[in-house]
Amino acid sequence: MKNHTTSLSRRRLLATVGGAVAWAGVGPVAFADSQEPAAQSKPGPVSAEKPLPPYAKWKNADSMIVHSANTIETRRTAFGSAGITPLDRLFVRNNVSPPPESIMEDPDGWQLEVEGVSKPRTFTVAELKKLGLTSLPMVLQCSGNGRAYFPAKPSGTQWTVGAAGCVVFVGVPVKELLKAVGGMGKGMVYMTGTGGEPIPAGVDSKQIMVERSVPISAIEDAILAWEINGEALPLAHGGPLRLIVPGYAGVNNIKYIKRLAFTKEQSPASIQQNSYRMSAVGVKGKPTDPSVWEMPPKSWINLPSDPKQSVKAGRLQISGVAMGGMDRPTKIEVSIDGGKTWHQARFIGPDLGKYAWREFVFQADLKPGTYQLASRSSNAKGQKQPEHRLENNRGYLNNSWRDHMVTITVT
Amino acid sequence: MKNHTTSLSRRRLLATVGGAVAWAGVGPVAFADSQEPAAQSKPGPVSAEKPLPPYAKWKNADSMIVHSANTIETRRTAFGSAGITPLDRLFVRNNVSPPPESIMEDPDGWQLEVEGVSKPRTFTVAELKKLGLTSLPMVLQCSGNGRAYFPAKPSGTQWTVGAAGCVVFVGVPVKELLKAVGGMGKGMVYMTGTGGEPIPAGVDSKQIMVERSVPISAIEDAILAWEINGEALPLAHGGPLRLIVPGYAGVNNIKYIKRLAFTKEQSPASIQQNSYRMSAVGVKGKPTDPSVWEMPPKSWINLPSDPKQSVKAGRLQISGVAMGGMDRPTKIEVSIDGGKTWHQARFIGPDLGKYAWREFVFQADLKPGTYQLASRSSNAKGQKQPEHRLENNRGYLNNSWRDHMVTITVT
Repeated sequence: MKNHTTSLSRRRLLATVGGAVAWAGVGPVAFADSQEPAAQSKPGPVSAEKPLPPYAKWKNADSMIVHSANTIETRRTAFGSAGITPLDRLFVRNNVSPPPESIMEDPDGWQLEVEGVSKPRTFTVAELKKLGLTSLPMVLQCSGNGRAYFPAKPSGTQWTVGAAGCVVFVGVPVKELLKAVGGMGKGMVYMTGTGGEPIPAGVDSKQIMVERSVPISAIEDAILAWEINGEALPLAHGGPLRLIVPGYAGVNNIKYIKRLAFTKEQSPASIQQNSYRMSAVGVKGKPTDPSVWEMPPKSWINLPSDPKQSVKAGRLQISGVAMGGMDRPTKIEVSIDGGKTWHQARFIGPDLGKYAWREFVFQADLKPGTYQLASRSSNAKGQKQPEHRLENNRGYLNNSWRDHMVTITVT
Repeated sequence: MKNHTTSLSRRRLLATVGGAVAWAGVGPVAFADSQEPAAQSKPGPVSAEKPLPPYAKWKNADSMIVHSANTIETRRTAFGSAGITPLDRLFVRNNVSPPPESIMEDPDGWQLEVEGVSKPRTFTVAELKKLGLTSLPMVLQCSGNGRAYFPAKPSGTQWTVGAAGCVVFVGVPVKELLKAVGGMGKGMVYMTGTGGEPIPAGVDSKQIMVERSVPISAIEDAILAWEINGEALPLAHGGPLRLIVPGYAGVNNIKYIKRLAFTKEQSPASIQQNSYRMSAVGVKGKPTDPSVWEMPPKSWINLPSDPKQSVKAGRLQISGVAMGGMDRPTKIEVSIDGGKTWHQARFIGPDLGKYAWREFVFQADLKPGTYQLASRSSNAKGQKQPEHRLENNRGYLNNSWRDHMVTITVT
C-alpha cells in the first residue's frame, strides 16, 4: 500500500509538472485514471516528448499522441484510408494499469470463469478456441472520444478524434459459449465481465476493478476474442482474452477478462454504478442515469485536417470515416461551408458490416480561401449524426458534427 | 559491369553453399531471380537462420520463411483468421532487387509517365492523389505459389501456400487517370506497366526489366496504389507507387511503377515474352503460350496445419482461406478423409468483394486417428477448384486441392 501511494503521488507530480514523462517505475500496480483529476482535467499542450509506455512501445510513435501511460491517441492524419486501422496506430486506453506482461507468456492457458449459467465452469483460452470461431470487424471507440470539444473541459483525457479505430476481432461467439454451459441461469438480465487487472492490497476493489454490465440483448453479437487484425491479441489491447460487445462504447469491452457472469443486477463496481453515466453537467453520475452503452452514429473528416499543411487550389479528395453505431452507415454528407450546405459523399471500399466504419470521399474543386469541412452520417435505422453534442458531466459520446469540423486554408 | 558479375557470382556461390546467407554486400544492383536456376531449383531444407534482408527487416521474423533476399514466404500457421493479412506477415517477392531505400524519401514526388493516351504527361504521386481515391481488398499472390507441390520441382522459389495474402490497397482508379489524360489512344489493347528497378549498365534491359502487359479489360478495376492496409506503401511492397490489377497474379502488379502505357503490343521484355507463360513441361515459354494473368479459384486449410502440433481428440475448428480468382468465392467444402467425402463449410467475417479471400471454418468432432484435411472452393461464376494442378514447365498457378492437403494426427 505504501508503495502504491508513493507511486501514485509521484505520477501525479510528474503529470502536473508536465513535459517529458518517463514511465520507469510505473509497474504493474493498478491505478485508476479517473482518480487523477488534477492531472487529467487541465491538460497542457500535447507534448511530443512523452514516450510510449513499455507495454505499447511497439506502436508507431509518429502516429500517436501519448496523453499518459494509459491513454494514447491516434493522430487524425494517421488513420489511412483502408477502412481498417493498423494495429500499430490503434489507440490505447486503460482504466487502470494493465496486468504484467507475464500474463502473455501462455495465452492459451489464460482462464475464464463462467458464472450465472446452468453449468458454471472455467475455460482456458485453448478450450474456448475449440468451441467456435468467428470474425468481427467493428469500431472500438473510447466513451470519451471527442471530449476535447466540450467547452466545459470535463475531467478525463482530452481526446479529439483518435480514441477510436476500426479493427477485426476474432474469437468465439458468446452464444456458442452459452451452449457449452447449458444456457443462462433463470432471470438473468445482464452480461457482466470482470477484467484481470491486479487490485492492490488494502484498496476497496469496487473502487478500482474494471467490471461492467451490459443488457443481455448484447449477447447476440458479442464474442470472446484472442486475435485482432490477424495477430494474437496483445496485452495493450486486452490479450490474452477480451470481451467484445460490438456497437458498445470501449469501456464495455473488458480486457484480460477473467470472469464472465450472467447476472440479475448490474456490477456494484464504481465504474458501473457512478462512472460512465450520462449525468447532468456538474452532477456526479448515479445508477439511475443512463449508462454509456450503445454508440450513436458519428463521422469525421481525416484528410485534409492538418492545419500546418497547405492545400493547393484545384481538385481535392476530402476523406474521412463514418460509423453507424448500432447499425450500418448508409448515408454520408459533406459540407465545405461549415454546415450551411451539404453534399452527398461517396463510400469507398467494402461494407464491413453494421458495427464497422466506412471510409468516405467527397471530391471538391476549391479556389483559394478558407473552408470549414464537416461531415454527417446516418445509419440503416435512420438515426442521424446531430449538429450538437449531448451535454453531460464527463464528456461522453460526443458525436456532434459541428464539434468535429476542421478549417483548412486553400492557397 | 565487373562489379555486377562479381556480386552475381558471389551470390550464386553463397546460395549454392546454402545455410545462413548474409545479405551484406547485396546492394541495390538489379538482379534477376529467374537467372538463378542453380540456386533455386534445388532448394535444401528451409533454414531458420536466414535473416530478413534490410528492406524487409520490419517483417515479423517468426511468421516468415526467408527463401532468399527477394523471396520471403508467410508461414502457413501465421495468417491469422481475420481475413486481412497483417503487413508484417505479408510475403515479399521481387523479380529483381528493389531500388534503393532513398526512393522513399519523398514518396509524393515519385513520378509516373503516362503514354499511349490522348495527352501523354507525367504525374507525381501528389498529383495522382488529387485525381481520385478508392480502396480495394484483394488477394496478392505470386504466380508460383504452390510450386513446391509440383513433383517435377520446377525451377523457381519452392513456395508452399505463403506467397499470398489478402490486403487492402488504396489509390486512384486507372479509369480516373485515363479521364485526366483524355482517354486511351486508338487501337490500344494492352495496359503495360514498367517497374522502377535500376538496370545495371551494359546489361540488355529486356532481359532484366520488370515490364508486364495485361489486356485492357483489366482497366475496369485496376488502381495505382500508394497505401496498403492503412499504411504508406513500403518499398518492400512496391512503394511509393504500385500498379494493382486485382484478380491477376502477383507479377502483373508492377512495383515502383515509373511508366504506365497503353499499347498495341505486349512488352518486349523477357518477363513478358518468355517468362510467366503456361508452357508444357520441359519446354521454355514462348509468346504464343498463355500468359500468367487471371488467377483461378483456390483455397487451403491453415489451422491445424503444423505437423509438430498435437491435436487433441474432440471438437475442432478447421479453418482456412478461400479465394474466387476473378469473382467472389461463394461455396467452400472441407474433407477430412483426403477428398473421399466433402462437407459444406461456413464463411466467417465480412465479404470483402470479389477479389478478396474469405476465411472459412468447418467444425468437426474427431476421434484419435490420422486425418487428411482438404478444402475446395467455387466462385460466383461457377468455376471450381480442381483436384489436379495444371502441369506446366515453371510451376505456375497451382490450385489443386489435393496438392494443398494437410495430414494431422489426433490423439
